[in-house]
Amino acid sequence: MAVQTRMAENFAKMQEFSADGKGITRLAFSDEDWQARTFIISLLKQAGLTIRIDDFGNIIGRRQGKNPAAPAVLCGSHIDSVPHGGNFDGVLGVLGAIEAVNLMNENNFKNYNPIDIVVFMCEESSRFGTATLGSKAACGKLTVRDMKQYKDTDNKSLYDILHSRGIEPDKRNKVIDLKNLKACIEMHIEQGKVLENIHKPIGIVTGIAAPTRIKLELRGKADHSGATPMTMRNDALCAAAEIILSVENIALTSLQPVVGTVGIANVSPNVMNVIPGEVELGIDIRSIYAQVKTNTVSTVKKAIEKISQKRKIQVSLHTLADEQPVTLDDYVINSIENVCREDNIAYNKMPSGAGHDMMHLAEHAPTGMIFIPCRDGISHNAAEWADMKDILRGTDVLYKTLCSLSAADSSIN
Amino acid sequence: MAVQTRMAENFAKMQEFSADGKGITRLAFSDEDWQARTFIISLLKQAGLTIRIDDFGNIIGRRQGKNPAAPAVLCGSHIDSVPHGGNFDGVLGVLGAIEAVNLMNENNFKNYNPIDIVVFMCEESSRFGTATLGSKAACGKLTVRDMKQYKDTDNKSLYDILHSRGIEPDKRNKVIDLKNLKACIEMHIEQGKVLENIHKPIGIVTGIAAPTRIKLELRGKADHSGATPMTMRNDALCAAAEIILSVENIALTSLQPVVGTVGIANVSPNVMNVIPGEVELGIDIRSIYAQVKTNTVSTVKKAIEKISQKRKIQVSLHTLADEQPVTLDDYVINSIENVCREDNIAYNKMPSGAGHDMMHLAEHAPTGMIFIPCRDGISHNAAEWADMKDILRGTDVLYKTLCSLSAADSSIN
Repeated sequence: MAVQTRMAENFAKMQEFSADGKGITRLAFSDEDWQARTFIISLLKQAGLTIRIDDFGNIIGRRQGKNPAAPAVLCGSHIDSVPHGGNFDGVLGVLGAIEAVNLMNENNFKNYNPIDIVVFMCEESSRFGTATLGSKAACGKLTVRDMKQYKDTDNKSLYDILHSRGIEPDKRNKVIDLKNLKACIEMHIEQGKVLENIHKPIGIVTGIAAPTRIKLELRGKADHSGATPMTMRNDALCAAAEIILSVENIALTSLQPVVGTVGIANVSPNVMNVIPGEVELGIDIRSIYAQVKTNTVSTVKKAIEKISQKRKIQVSLHTLADEQPVTLDDYVINSIENVCREDNIAYNKMPSGAGHDMMHLAEHAPTGMIFIPCRDGISHNAAEWADMKDILRGTDVLYKTLCSLSAADSSIN
Repeated sequence: MAVQTRMAENFAKMQEFSADGKGITRLAFSDEDWQARTFIISLLKQAGLTIRIDDFGNIIGRRQGKNPAAPAVLCGSHIDSVPHGGNFDGVLGVLGAIEAVNLMNENNFKNYNPIDIVVFMCEESSRFGTATLGSKAACGKLTVRDMKQYKDTDNKSLYDILHSRGIEPDKRNKVIDLKNLKACIEMHIEQGKVLENIHKPIGIVTGIAAPTRIKLELRGKADHSGATPMTMRNDALCAAAEIILSVENIALTSLQPVVGTVGIANVSPNVMNVIPGEVELGIDIRSIYAQVKTNTVSTVKKAIEKISQKRKIQVSLHTLADEQPVTLDDYVINSIENVCREDNIAYNKMPSGAGHDMMHLAEHAPTGMIFIPCRDGISHNAAEWADMKDILRGTDVLYKTLCSLSAADSSIN
């Protein structure tokens, strides 16, 4: 069967596993997720892989290597979705990895290092408010206590849900040997529109940006909008507006790559005839370089202080998250780059603005990621779309990179 | 009984007519409003006034003049409140007017012109979404059809509610003769903090500002906040921020008195990791001068166009209201000013940013308003407060102005 037919069939099948018809709704550990999981396990088995399940339900399908004791090459992604999400976020990386193994089988490729195709559970934050839980668990960053504390909207704990699916997190059955990994790689849709805009079909990810997230509460004075002269106001929304533009300008004029966004603004009392007394802002600052992010956050905080002092606005600032960005590994980056060069495929080295499971693996092994374009950069939305020709090109690059990484003569620089 | 004792007792009594204990909740035509009305009618009768009720339930108590056919001097305010409002908004003007008549009685003042003390029903917009309904009805600006269309949150029509209170709007029983008015006057708390800030106990209102209200819908692109470089964004909130600051700056730097406020901002999707795709703004621009307001609105619209074009943001602009400001009358203004000068009371000539019943009367007769300070400018709030010494000073100025306006020898310039 041709690669394209197989991939098209598998994407079509995955589309069936959804709680409703508006895009894909497949929350982690839901019935739909479990049906999709069963289907994926069948594909892994058809590809000849030996299946193991770890203590979080992550699926690891192994293609044994000539040297079973050699460090493994890990490749995979996730199959859960946000509510009303798309059919490509995560699924691409799983189906692409399986197809890479199919191609190895068809081309009779013999890998020296074992290859582990991994499906991480619960990558999306939609059910428990926290993302990449499966890879965190595999990397020992999620305790049983955490699992008992994380609750879904029905107030069911992650721990109980795991048990109801026959998974026993207490048993500490770690399948992925973090000390014996040669490389990790994941293919994913870009979830941005850079590749589309510059007309390049492959992105080679240089780092995974991590956010610093700030909740800012601004308190001015809620006076009558008709009865208060302009010079007697403490308008919290005007202060917020200056801060919103400062965040944009600081990121825009930074000499180092960084993005800054005010995504949330809640105004109180939010009525036509009252000067806004209180505004809450949500600020998200990301870079793949820790120092750049730290410097940017510091500059933003100084701007907030200056603006609020000038306008006599009380400020309360809460840092909700301050995560470490991850620089991806030159060895894996070069391996992908070599494949693209040999096949004359245009590529772009670029950061990932979104988080991925691979950021946890990158702490243990040389790690890389391949991006393919997605239409209009849209993701986490029913309109999410990737063209089959981009999917096939990405899969081919992934296949060849996996071959290169798992061949006997490849070595870590 | 001393004026102060009487006033304190009446304010205390009015405080009892509330649906709950958080400030005053006395929606128009509610049971509380009806109890307060009964109390006020008793005060009007005690003051010797002849009561008439018009076809909207407005109460008119007449102190007959030496010449019953002479044009009447009208004075009053309202007794309904917003939910959890204060005990002074409206009530001050009604109790003050009644007390002015009590002082006339005690001082044996004989008015040439009839004096009509009026309590307008339903001044607040809280129940039917529209303000100053009683004075609109008295001025022939409210049709029976309107009354059938206006509904409260229980979906009861104003028309049915009037009937349930024994009021028959179809009978067109107009008590106030708009063609035979000498002057109209209302005392009110400022609902702003200008008088408090400049330490003057009396405000003489020169005009009643009217708003132009604009709903602005901005549509950019809701992209991933991590995956979208700063140069590839169409951030609707950044455009909104520029517009918010433009409105402020245009009003602040206007050479003519005008205020501009963005009171409403609703962001979509309003989450931390998505660049805001849509923002709705509510803009309120007020002046007591129609031309100044028109010019300001036009300047604001130009700024919106420029900002949205620069940022490639789609704009949809809806003018929700475009009301006519009212210039108050020099004859009444001068009468109040003369009283203040004679009694050596510091006063400030100032616009009213808020709307009042008197803006409708001003279309028919020379009209003026007296403001007294309210603490921190707070109104429409349980914390609304006016000091008794300011209440008594205001009442005295109102009394003397009413005497002057209704004395035989006063004439319209």
